[in-house]
Amino acid sequence: MNSIDKLSEIFSHFPGIGPRQAKRFVYYLLHRQNGFSKDLVDAVENLKKEIKQCDECLRFFAKNGHAGKLCSTCSDDTRDRSLLMIVPRDIDLEAIEKSGGYKGYYFVLGGALPILEKEPEKRIRIKELKKHLHHKKDLKEIILGMNANAEGENTADFLKAELSSLINKDVAVSILGRGLSTGIELEYADPETLKNAFLHRTK
Amino acid sequence: MNSIDKLSEIFSHFPGIGPRQAKRFVYYLLHRQNGFSKDLVDAVENLKKEIKQCDECLRFFAKNGHAGKLCSTCSDDTRDRSLLMIVPRDIDLEAIEKSGGYKGYYFVLGGALPILEKEPEKRIRIKELKKHLHHKKDLKEIILGMNANAEGENTADFLKAELSSLINKDVAVSILGRGLSTGIELEYADPETLKNAFLHRTK
Amino acid sequence: MNSIDKLSEIFSHFPGIGPRQAKRFVYYLLHRQNGFSKDLVDAVENLKKEIKQCDECLRFFAKNGHAGKLCSTCSDDTRDRSLLMIVPRDIDLEAIEKSGGYKGYYFVLGGALPILEKEPEKRIRIKELKKHLHHKKDLKEIILGMNANAEGENTADFLKAELSSLINKDVAVSILGRGLSTGIELEYADPETLKNAFLHRTK
Amino acid sequence: MNSIDKLSEIFSHFPGIGPRQAKRFVYYLLHRQNGFSKDLVDAVENLKKEIKQCDECLRFFAKNGHAGKLCSTCSDDTRDRSLLMIVPRDIDLEAIEKSGGYKGYYFVLGGALPILEKEPEKRIRIKELKKHLHHKKDLKEIILGMNANAEGENTADFLKAELSSLINKDVAVSILGRGLSTGIELEYADPETLKNAFLHRTK
Repeated sequence: MNSIDKLSEIFSHFPGIGPRQAKRFVYYLLHRQNGFSKDLVDAVENLKKEIKQCDECLRFFAKNGHAGKLCSTCSDDTRDRSLLMIVPRDIDLEAIEKSGGYKGYYFVLGGALPILEKEPEKRIRIKELKKHLHHKKDLKEIILGMNANAEGENTADFLKAELSSLINKDVAVSILGRGLSTGIELEYADPETLKNAFLHRTK
Repeated sequence: MNSIDKLSEIFSHFPGIGPRQAKRFVYYLLHRQNGFSKDLVDAVENLKKEIKQCDECLRFFAKNGHAGKLCSTCSDDTRDRSLLMIVPRDIDLEAIEKSGGYKGYYFVLGGALPILEKEPEKRIRIKELKKHLHHKKDLKEIILGMNANAEGENTADFLKAELSSLINKDVAVSILGRGLSTGIELEYADPETLKNAFLHRTK
Repeated sequence: MNSIDKLSEIFSHFPGIGPRQAKRFVYYLLHRQNGFSKDLVDAVENLKKEIKQCDECLRFFAKNGHAGKLCSTCSDDTRDRSLLMIVPRDIDLEAIEKSGGYKGYYFVLGGALPILEKEPEKRIRIKELKKHLHHKKDLKEIILGMNANAEGENTADFLKAELSSLINKDVAVSILGRGLSTGIELEYADPETLKNAFLHRTK
Repeated sequence: MNSIDKLSEIFSHFPGIGPRQAKRFVYYLLHRQNGFSKDLVDAVENLKKEIKQCDECLRFFAKNGHAGKLCSTCSDDTRDRSLLMIVPRDIDLEAIEKSGGYKGYYFVLGGALPILEKEPEKRIRIKELKKHLHHKKDLKEIILGMNANAEGENTADFLKAELSSLINKDVAVSILGRGLSTGIELEYADPETLKNAFLHRTK
């Protein structure tokens, strides 16, 4: 395999990229001046050097020369220790943070469970979550911040079952509220969404 | 204009139909046996005969031989008189009814207001709404059941302003709850949706 | 079934229309003034009165008060009698006519054959075509004007086989030329298209 | 900027990639084992080492240890020296080669000219093309292998004008044949395509 084909093959593993677009990427690199490929190589190499995984929430974060083992959120003492939100991936954590409404801590599950998944512990960080919960104190509520789709609901069901024996009665388990997402029209909303939109109406 | 072009022109006014599909409709009618065109003509003619507009909520409903002036919802005495939901169109009323969560009455506004609309009373049944509210008794809450888009929000703002002088302090005005609609992923949800999904979380 | 549901059901048979859009059509009619529904009914009723099928090419055409049994194309003596193009549907005949490049006669087949179709004579006017060819004189070439997709190719293969025994050796059977359609990029063209684009290059 | 943002920024320059998908690429790299990132870096570095630009057609090709300055096509003496096809990009050359119908030589123009482009020589290799034609012998036909869109036609017009003074009368300039591309339906084809499909019909 020559290096055009080799690099195409690698790009074709990227999320959402097929063989044709992968090849376009390679030709794009060939057409750009050498500086661009060097920047790419440097950035990829720096990524593993500069980025580490937070010991608490397991998200990836930039070390920025600090020796700390915690990301900026987990090392922020002013946040609400009584709340822990479990989210599928780093990018979901970022979305919630940007929304500005949540001030508790997070745990990044690393994915979601497809229906009938036989080896959940290979898909999501369930073992790590249990260990994490073990040493959490002052916890009052765990929010299952899952996507509002079949995988998300399946993951929430799985987590509820796993957590039930683990956490004491004082810790509530909640799920994110259903309702009208921005852009949704009533006509196209499903009954579940509409029922909740009415229940959660605001005055 | 021959009758192929004439009928194409009429179909091209149908919502979402362009000239090309309009013409396909005409050829479809030509290819079907005569019975189909006759069924279409009969159904269109029956529509105006059998369907009337409800005196209360202004939705269209089938008379079914009854002399009544109210649709099945408005003539149902067991519903909750303290709640009135204002929805843009008949089809939205149907969607809410199907969801099964709401047991109050409705008013069909007949549409929504685009931003900067100069003649709101031509777009929506605002005059009819005011008249309708005038004789409503026992009302405790008006729910603005608008779509979660710019037009819907604009219409809600307009209605709040119009209603403020009209209804007494005891009547609350609410909007449908925001949150995660079925199918939404956190990564693609906007901050408004995420903030409300957290606020309206359910245990 | 009330007349809203009845008319929805009829519209849902229209090509490309699902139950939801069918219902939108009905509400559209209800919201329009009475004149619009009347225009629709009149146009549908006029369609069957004013439109007849051409005795020769079998397309539909407006009679316009004339007693003639032939459409404007088939009754045009100045066209090239040596050429006959077989097209799937009326709308394809119109497209070819608008392109202005063809000056022969047409036959509308009434559709195309899906692969493995067991009853071709129910799908396409093969019997009518044979009868039509029987009394055609001066014919030198039959052009199979099929769509460039699997159904079109299947129909062309079927017609070639059927026609072989029917027409004499002096009548050629041709297919429309392959090449780059307007808008096509080389990168996305298939080998068949590219090979023919090279073969049919023009100086 | 931390290295997640830096690498996201680089990926967002890739053709067809927006900031959101660029970030997904970065998290994808973070989640994969170290081996994958190393493979990516190696492949990018090898690309510039192993790939060179052909001295003749200017496409990129793998050196494979050979010292040759020509790609496999340009160094193939058995091809037809009388034909030269000018294509926009490497990927178009590959598409034509795969189609198997063309056995002449190529020149990769490096792109196409948008309408009203003021500096054509910065967009396409027009200077290199002129130099290339200068030393071509036995040439009988130049095929302008452009995409069948506005940019492609604009580029063909530009090339015709530029070449007219350069090549002698014995060299013809041709364009790829128009016709029905695979998948096209007559109803949706434009007049230009249909006219040529008829002209280039095959018996």
